[in-house]
Amino acid sequence: MLRIAQVQMPVLADKMENIAAAGRAMETLAGQGADIVALPEMFCCPYRTDNFPMYAEAKGGPVWQACADLARKFGVYLSAGSVPEKDADGRIYNTAYVFDRAGRQIARHRKVHLFDIDVKGGQRFRESDTLSPGGAVTVFDTEFGPVGLCICYDFRFPEMGRLMALKGARLVLVPAAFNMTTGPMHWELMFRSQAMYNQFFAVGTAPARDENGPYVSWGHSIVADPWGNIAGQMDAAPDIRVLELNLDDASAVREQLPLLRHRRTDLYVLSENMS
Amino acid sequence: MLRIAQVQMPVLADKMENIAAAGRAMETLAGQGADIVALPEMFCCPYRTDNFPMYAEAKGGPVWQACADLARKFGVYLSAGSVPEKDADGRIYNTAYVFDRAGRQIARHRKVHLFDIDVKGGQRFRESDTLSPGGAVTVFDTEFGPVGLCICYDFRFPEMGRLMALKGARLVLVPAAFNMTTGPMHWELMFRSQAMYNQFFAVGTAPARDENGPYVSWGHSIVADPWGNIAGQMDAAPDIRVLELNLDDASAVREQLPLLRHRRTDLYVLSENMS
Repeated sequence: MLRIAQVQMPVLADKMENIAAAGRAMETLAGQGADIVALPEMFCCPYRTDNFPMYAEAKGGPVWQACADLARKFGVYLSAGSVPEKDADGRIYNTAYVFDRAGRQIARHRKVHLFDIDVKGGQRFRESDTLSPGGAVTVFDTEFGPVGLCICYDFRFPEMGRLMALKGARLVLVPAAFNMTTGPMHWELMFRSQAMYNQFFAVGTAPARDENGPYVSWGHSIVADPWGNIAGQMDAAPDIRVLELNLDDASAVREQLPLLRHRRTDLYVLSENMS
Repeated sequence: MLRIAQVQMPVLADKMENIAAAGRAMETLAGQGADIVALPEMFCCPYRTDNFPMYAEAKGGPVWQACADLARKFGVYLSAGSVPEKDADGRIYNTAYVFDRAGRQIARHRKVHLFDIDVKGGQRFRESDTLSPGGAVTVFDTEFGPVGLCICYDFRFPEMGRLMALKGARLVLVPAAFNMTTGPMHWELMFRSQAMYNQFFAVGTAPARDENGPYVSWGHSIVADPWGNIAGQMDAAPDIRVLELNLDDASAVREQLPLLRHRRTDLYVLSENMS
């Protein structure tokens, strides 16, 4: 059994206040036996394209270090949502780090699909104004087996869920922040269906809603199980929760309804381009 | 605008009685201006693996000919659900034919993924006991543009929906027959999510429920729109309906939320194997 904890937190303008809030939540959650703590997308940078370069840090910077310290302090895996990352060439990424119980970074996923949309009468957003895209599908090893990791808009692409499943993931972590247009339309549908098609647990962790923030998050942090049912879902307010998952349930579902085995790989090919 | 009609009919033991019922429905629907009439999976063969060889006909057989005649008589496209087809070598397929307004066969899809499942305490079924699998992803041309075609379990594979969309389909026809286990769990979720990911109209047409039949169909013939919303859905009883669809809505959705354009084809490749 694996205890997954989600922290649906507001995102404040002060980076380190967000870290402090995450630390307080983790103390509570570690007390409840959490194995993995998941934070939201851009949990310490209010979600605006012009904020990303201002808040960005290199790997090893203050936010990264604080996250590593928290993971070690509480002896949990920390999926540190996502943060703006600056690389050596000055490019900025929307990056999800994961730290193990000893505080070592064991995964880094840079958002692969940038969120550039323009819904009539709804949301307009262009991440690519300030962000560069990542270039890999991410699955990392843990004591619970392989775990997938991607960020928000990445999960709108069935290729991503499938490739993570094919790499062995029975659990996928998705820091995310849908908005008031896309949230009611697609949030549940996306998590439930990716879980159904790939027969894994899909964990979406979002910021709490702040009606006065620059980007109004839908909230509704969610866990979908390998049948595509909702194992847990929050409302829009700040909340923290622990849920016990048995990853062997994913294997059992795959045995009863062998979707991954029934793929017609002679007829179609889905592969990660390693070039 | 395109008027899609769905015939949620009971499936009787007598092949030609089913054809007659389809003909009566088509007369009504043609009167309502239907452009395409969609029939259910195995609409003239009660859904049992040992029925398939007994009911199977070669292309050009009585059922095929009757369908061609009905399409021509009413001047509509007929997606003739699916029927058991016998090929020259005696192999049996679950096959969906489509006829144009002149009664010419313009598409044939043989079910690619055979439904072999064993859900604990639920459904057990092995199509592969008597059926052979098809070997192609099917999109055909109409006056409304390219239309995708697959059968039931095929649509549980995100690869299939995606490949049809990449071949230009803004409308996908899916004769199907979920059961009382998989129906409540996944019917809506599958049609809505395939429509959402691929931004096409997804039309699922099922047999009416017969509690005393060998296979109890979930019914609930459905149309999901390119946002993943339900444009129409029946209950379990016999029913016929016409729905007006504007396929340009799919193009508009793809413009506002350019999922197909945002695919990272440099990072992953999904392709049909033409070998």
